Amino acid sequence: MSCVATESRSGQPSISYSITVRLELPAGGSAISMLTSCVEEAGGIVTALDVTASGHDKLRIDVTCAASDTAHADRIVDALRSIEGVAVHKVSDRTFLMHLGGTIEMASKHPIRNRDDLSMVYTPGVARVCEAIVANPEDARRLTVKRNSVAVVTDGSAVLGLGNIGPAAALPVMEGKAALFKRFAGIDAWPLCLDTQDPDLIVEIVRAVSPGFAGINLEDISAPRCFEIEARLREILDIPVFHDDQHGTAIVVLAALTNALRVVGKQLSAVRIVMSGAGAAGTAILRLLLEAGAQDVVVADVEGVVYRERPGLHESLFALAEATNKKGLTGTMHDAIVDADVFIGVSAPNVIDGDDVARMAEGSIVFALANPVPEIDPGVARRHAAVVATGRSDYPNQINNVLAFPGVFRGLLDASANQIDDTLLVAAAEAIAGAVTADELNANYIIPSVFHADVHTAVATAVRTAAEAHKSAASAHA
Amino acid sequence: MSCVATESRSGQPSISYSITVRLELPAGGSAISMLTSCVEEAGGIVTALDVTASGHDKLRIDVTCAASDTAHADRIVDALRSIEGVAVHKVSDRTFLMHLGGTIEMASKHPIRNRDDLSMVYTPGVARVCEAIVANPEDARRLTVKRNSVAVVTDGSAVLGLGNIGPAAALPVMEGKAALFKRFAGIDAWPLCLDTQDPDLIVEIVRAVSPGFAGINLEDISAPRCFEIEARLREILDIPVFHDDQHGTAIVVLAALTNALRVVGKQLSAVRIVMSGAGAAGTAILRLLLEAGAQDVVVADVEGVVYRERPGLHESLFALAEATNKKGLTGTMHDAIVDADVFIGVSAPNVIDGDDVARMAEGSIVFALANPVPEIDPGVARRHAAVVATGRSDYPNQINNVLAFPGVFRGLLDASANQIDDTLLVAAAEAIAGAVTADELNANYIIPSVFHADVHTAVATAVRTAAEAHKSAASAHA
Repeated sequence: MSCVATESRSGQPSISYSITVRLELPAGGSAISMLTSCVEEAGGIVTALDVTASGHDKLRIDVTCAASDTAHADRIVDALRSIEGVAVHKVSDRTFLMHLGGTIEMASKHPIRNRDDLSMVYTPGVARVCEAIVANPEDARRLTVKRNSVAVVTDGSAVLGLGNIGPAAALPVMEGKAALFKRFAGIDAWPLCLDTQDPDLIVEIVRAVSPGFAGINLEDISAPRCFEIEARLREILDIPVFHDDQHGTAIVVLAALTNALRVVGKQLSAVRIVMSGAGAAGTAILRLLLEAGAQDVVVADVEGVVYRERPGLHESLFALAEATNKKGLTGTMHDAIVDADVFIGVSAPNVIDGDDVARMAEGSIVFALANPVPEIDPGVARRHAAVVATGRSDYPNQINNVLAFPGVFRGLLDASANQIDDTLLVAAAEAIAGAVTADELNANYIIPSVFHADVHTAVATAVRTAAEAHKSAASAHA
Repeated sequence: MSCVATESRSGQPSISYSITVRLELPAGGSAISMLTSCVEEAGGIVTALDVTASGHDKLRIDVTCAASDTAHADRIVDALRSIEGVAVHKVSDRTFLMHLGGTIEMASKHPIRNRDDLSMVYTPGVARVCEAIVANPEDARRLTVKRNSVAVVTDGSAVLGLGNIGPAAALPVMEGKAALFKRFAGIDAWPLCLDTQDPDLIVEIVRAVSPGFAGINLEDISAPRCFEIEARLREILDIPVFHDDQHGTAIVVLAALTNALRVVGKQLSAVRIVMSGAGAAGTAILRLLLEAGAQDVVVADVEGVVYRERPGLHESLFALAEATNKKGLTGTMHDAIVDADVFIGVSAPNVIDGDDVARMAEGSIVFALANPVPEIDPGVARRHAAVVATGRSDYPNQINNVLAFPGVFRGLLDASANQIDDTLLVAAAEAIAGAVTADELNANYIIPSVFHADVHTAVATAVRTAAEAHKSAASAHA
């Protein structure tokens, strides 16, 4: 009796590819003793083994195990099937099981047990609540879900690394986002996946639905449309508008960089930063770095270093060129990275290599954030760089937006903020950085876990304080 | 010691105007014995009396009582304050307390306890779910909240009896509606209160948000815009569109009329029906009555009986005139009602009187649905009519939309219906009527309570069956 496992997997087994295989096998034989070793030989990790039915001569067993991807999961199932006497009945994918019927729901806050309850939640009692809002429109924040509600808006044009997959296929991501809003900040978010990619119409729709929400979280909208949509919405709405792919990423990068600089003992205003990528995230990161005091940033895109006189420079990069590269560098990323203190990649897999990192200044910092395959293998980068961070959860120092957006919106909602600006984003970054104490700080821990007990509250408090200071400054000037 | 109560209230005390008054009074005196009688003398009803703090010489007591309206509540508080030794500390309105912060929330279906949960609900695991929907778009109904989700859409133009109060003030009603969707049918509804009253834009917005929902419930949109919006959305969407003010009301009226006719032993096809009101609800009721087999209907509006040749007849009434009044009656409502079997009012307070009802045929049926003040006082109507129904909860036979919409959508969602038509509405009406058994049926019980144990399931099953029959008929023709 043997198990035929073929192993040729690309990554580490992950619970996000976790499957449950329902097997039937003889009660008396030795097949059961082979299950775990068979999965492990196939490169999987058994996380649970439940006997779900037992008889005189048969056992039904659910084997749950982590695989690295779909093909790997198939190989594990094939390996189990190859054990003599084992019949595979059903393979369930735990991630799909979790998403069956969606991951979020609407809940009523009060039981509706009888006519009395009904007459308060709904007619006729609710009419007085409406009348109170007519009399005092500000009461909408007090007497409705608006106070605690955020619209998660996408057009499905740039979803995760999957590209332009449209609104329906984007919905699972937006549901997950809504679930995280609740989990980490107690916010009631609802996804709006729009079947249009016309910026004018998106702006009109978000404007029209805004009475029911206290904040707008734009999500996975492709550049450059996302810039225009965000800018126009900020202009016309009286609630804050946040584009997580830009501002969430920028906040966490600034937080991580703040702590990475502490590790190597350098100042943001003194370091030379080279960025790879001038898309939505890159542009937002750059803006926040400058806001926070960075003086020397050089950006490169697929055509090389961005400078004002670069032939054929696209109009959308004019402002970026003005704000960066004061020494007028030209050439490629590989030229620009020589003697740089910081590399921040938000671009594509493998754009730099170990030699590039070796040519950076002493105590260099490398953030390789392309996902799932970073700009450089973090293990290779770490041979030369003092601090390395990625967007992946299977390496130290994950740059994860989930650290920012829940607390940012909690703070905005608690302040009844009408808008958001870069000073609030800097305050959020400082709060995240501050969640790592001096005693905890080291090259492999520059950024807290998203499950850190206090980080979301710290972000919320920092943003609320900054937003309220804004408000009183604004009213003092009025 | 006395209590100065002034009573001049308009209606009955209702729990929807329930207040809690926090009082402080001497522990030793007799003031406490006067509290209940004082509230009752002022016309209120004490529903709870809680001692919330007690000391050697003082008591703090929360008195909860029902009032008939805001002014009445004020008079009750004044009466309590007039008792010697009583200090009123705080008056809380229970309906407002219930609406503080809104009556609904978003909930995550799964706990997110650790990195593993996160990697399945959100990235990286969620990417595979998105990919599955890209590969098979129908899977959106299986793998997202869409399957069970309804958008409650309003522009705030005709909210309850309050008129055009706008989207923000309409939100408490839409939240209540969402809460009822959950309570009676397990549906996840989310309110979208639109800051536009332009039909073109409303149609575009609902079309654009439709990927995330399996049904659209239009709510409190004024006529005639509601007709156009509904018709155009039904044309372009692949999910059912229901305008509750029209279709919900029509279903429940048809259900009630079905049972009222049983009580008086008449047939729908044989009776003469006079309707007062040709607005959104009236038009929808008429259409459903005709669909269900009514032959002889006469409609009157503020200008009198509608007939094809009526001078200056508005274009929007041409179709209605064609479908009704086959005998070519002219004159007023008072002329038309003579010898009629059924009066259905969806118009305005007090448009008919007892003499009108007395001139109806033997065994007459009067539905006076204007709210809160009906077309005729139901007590007066009942002196002459065999069966009387209203829209109010404080008389027998309440015509209440809540009987229809939850079950209708449950059935539509369970059938993955792409559309809705009048045959489904008739099926829903029959299911509601059928929830009253032959043994239970009498002139004061023609319609079940919204808390009836089986009515919503019965409606859902009837609608699902009818919708599935449609679907297979459609595919048989394809």
